[in-house]
Amino acid sequence: MPRSDAATLATLATPALVLDTSRLDRNLARLRTRMAERGVTLRPHMKTAKSIDVARRAFPTGPGPITISTLAEAEYFAGYGYRDMTYAVGISRHTAERAMRLREAGVDIKMLLDTVEQAAIAGEAGRAAGVTPAAFIEIDCDGHRGGLLVTDPKLLEVAAALEATGIALAGVLTHAGESYALTSEALEAAAENERAVAVDAATRLRAAGHECPIVSVGSTPTAHFATALDGVTEMRAGVYMFFDLVMHGVGVCTTDDIALSVLSTVIGAKPEKGWIMVDAGWMALSRDRGTAAQRVDQGYGLVTDPDGRLYPDLIVACASQEHGTLAIRSGSSQPLPELPVGAKVRILPNHACATGSQHERYHVVPGPGGAVEAEWPRIRGW
Amino acid sequence: MPRSDAATLATLATPALVLDTSRLDRNLARLRTRMAERGVTLRPHMKTAKSIDVARRAFPTGPGPITISTLAEAEYFAGYGYRDMTYAVGISRHTAERAMRLREAGVDIKMLLDTVEQAAIAGEAGRAAGVTPAAFIEIDCDGHRGGLLVTDPKLLEVAAALEATGIALAGVLTHAGESYALTSEALEAAAENERAVAVDAATRLRAAGHECPIVSVGSTPTAHFATALDGVTEMRAGVYMFFDLVMHGVGVCTTDDIALSVLSTVIGAKPEKGWIMVDAGWMALSRDRGTAAQRVDQGYGLVTDPDGRLYPDLIVACASQEHGTLAIRSGSSQPLPELPVGAKVRILPNHACATGSQHERYHVVPGPGGAVEAEWPRIRGW
Repeated sequence: MPRSDAATLATLATPALVLDTSRLDRNLARLRTRMAERGVTLRPHMKTAKSIDVARRAFPTGPGPITISTLAEAEYFAGYGYRDMTYAVGISRHTAERAMRLREAGVDIKMLLDTVEQAAIAGEAGRAAGVTPAAFIEIDCDGHRGGLLVTDPKLLEVAAALEATGIALAGVLTHAGESYALTSEALEAAAENERAVAVDAATRLRAAGHECPIVSVGSTPTAHFATALDGVTEMRAGVYMFFDLVMHGVGVCTTDDIALSVLSTVIGAKPEKGWIMVDAGWMALSRDRGTAAQRVDQGYGLVTDPDGRLYPDLIVACASQEHGTLAIRSGSSQPLPELPVGAKVRILPNHACATGSQHERYHVVPGPGGAVEAEWPRIRGW
Repeated sequence: MPRSDAATLATLATPALVLDTSRLDRNLARLRTRMAERGVTLRPHMKTAKSIDVARRAFPTGPGPITISTLAEAEYFAGYGYRDMTYAVGISRHTAERAMRLREAGVDIKMLLDTVEQAAIAGEAGRAAGVTPAAFIEIDCDGHRGGLLVTDPKLLEVAAALEATGIALAGVLTHAGESYALTSEALEAAAENERAVAVDAATRLRAAGHECPIVSVGSTPTAHFATALDGVTEMRAGVYMFFDLVMHGVGVCTTDDIALSVLSTVIGAKPEKGWIMVDAGWMALSRDRGTAAQRVDQGYGLVTDPDGRLYPDLIVACASQEHGTLAIRSGSSQPLPELPVGAKVRILPNHACATGSQHERYHVVPGPGGAVEAEWPRIRGW
């Protein structure tokens, strides 16, 4: 909703989640253009934003294809006219039944599975609801999590089970989850591997007589480092909308691309220790320490002034529930900035999905120095 | 609210936050008795539970003294008749003004500060609202976060500033935050240090002519390991209500005392890797890895069956947003249990405050095997 008062980042109550729409729009355009050039459908993952207002920036001309991580997201976006969605988490009986209620209501929700048992569950759920389910077979391209290896005989067994139980095979889906642990040098190869594995799986299914219309790959790093996408029909990515310090560490974005930050107020200091205390602890920042395993550990986040200018080497070194401790990064000779009680700072998050989930709404600014133009609610739960 | 249907842990949609009230009541009684024996007021910290229903278990005969970590908590509990509260986060102008609106409404909310600047801010907020503010001076007992050292000349300067600006000195407050990093051997000494520092600060203030009615200490570990509490008037603790794996690692509780868990459903497996996939990822468990620094690293949590019986050495080894990967702890020769798609497990959390905050409500069970008796909402935000 638009704000009726004239809030600015100087007057907003803290801690508050701030979304910079100039950066958001730039990030959205970057991947949209990249995929359009390659003739690949972009199916944004809404698990990061969880917001209809952000979805509308991604799809300015009306609802498009989306990926979702919970059925709460599915039902929410369906309520705004989104009809083409992939539920990218393996199903159980309860979720299959709930997904089929959406399908009954006209939503083309595609499920994800990798076992014959799940095919049976999905088939029963479809019959009970009087609809034809659609499902992806999950493929494992890098040993990250779930999915079948392309060489696993179960690939064809699951496809046969889908056919036998009257489920439409939507296609194959894979996710290069290990790409988050890589750096730019290795990402081109990870993207090519993700592509090649997915296409290989589709080829094997087609050779066995199965239609396999969609070949779906994706992660924010591989989406930005893929050179060729031959045989791939769609790309999934979520965090690319906002970016974050983990993605910066991976080499996908600059800190100037990070659209999400947490506005915070200084509430104390320990000059003898080089500490400044702020009112953003892990409740506002999340417990995510994704940069701890990267070349540069950003603590709980990098600190900027309200206009987004970085304080050199100033990080959130510690976080308790409602307290953050700012300090100069270990090994740096930068001076601690003068930040009296009441001063405002912004904190760039390690992981946009996790930090976003700690908040009920975005406070939307058009760029540095602007007024808060709107509040955009986020959804949560399952 | 009581549930009208007959939900059980077998039928509840997952992931779901489960609260065992037999364990909750036992934990509440344990510290209540301990403090009563020592003649010390227990002022529970509501930052862990964030629930009026849990508060009512802590205070069965009506609202008592509480600690709060956000003004959203303060306003929520004030709405249920809680009038005596300590806001245990350092103030800034905005929070002081908001706290004074509560004071105007008859809530005895006590603020926390450690600078002359904050005393001026609190004084102005009080004058603007036409009320007399009350504030604690924060004392640093272990170098953990904020507060003044007892030997710091600022202690008396801040007390003088409070007097000069017409603020009532509520007392001194300290928090042995470093106690979470200790183990039981060191906790008795940490508790004694917390006590001695707080009493020393009060003694110095009284010697300078200031009334210092409250001497407030607290953390869950020190609350349970303190032998004497001479000179202390009140104890603050929050996580003791639920306990968690970090507290288990510290030595304050057994796993059978942990009242909070996340119910989850099996959605896949990778037997060749020794993995079972469940639908509780970090969104349901939080990103808290507090046990990583302890003797036993519990991953993202220890796994039990729906009745609360531990699977030996089965932990949540990895977590992505909506996926958890169960695996046998590294180095253990325990077999992976048979858990087919659809099986339910419960996950004991590393950190109850963080895991709780990922959920909108508690699903309340009276103990192992019981039906879900009620849903208790939680609040969030600031």
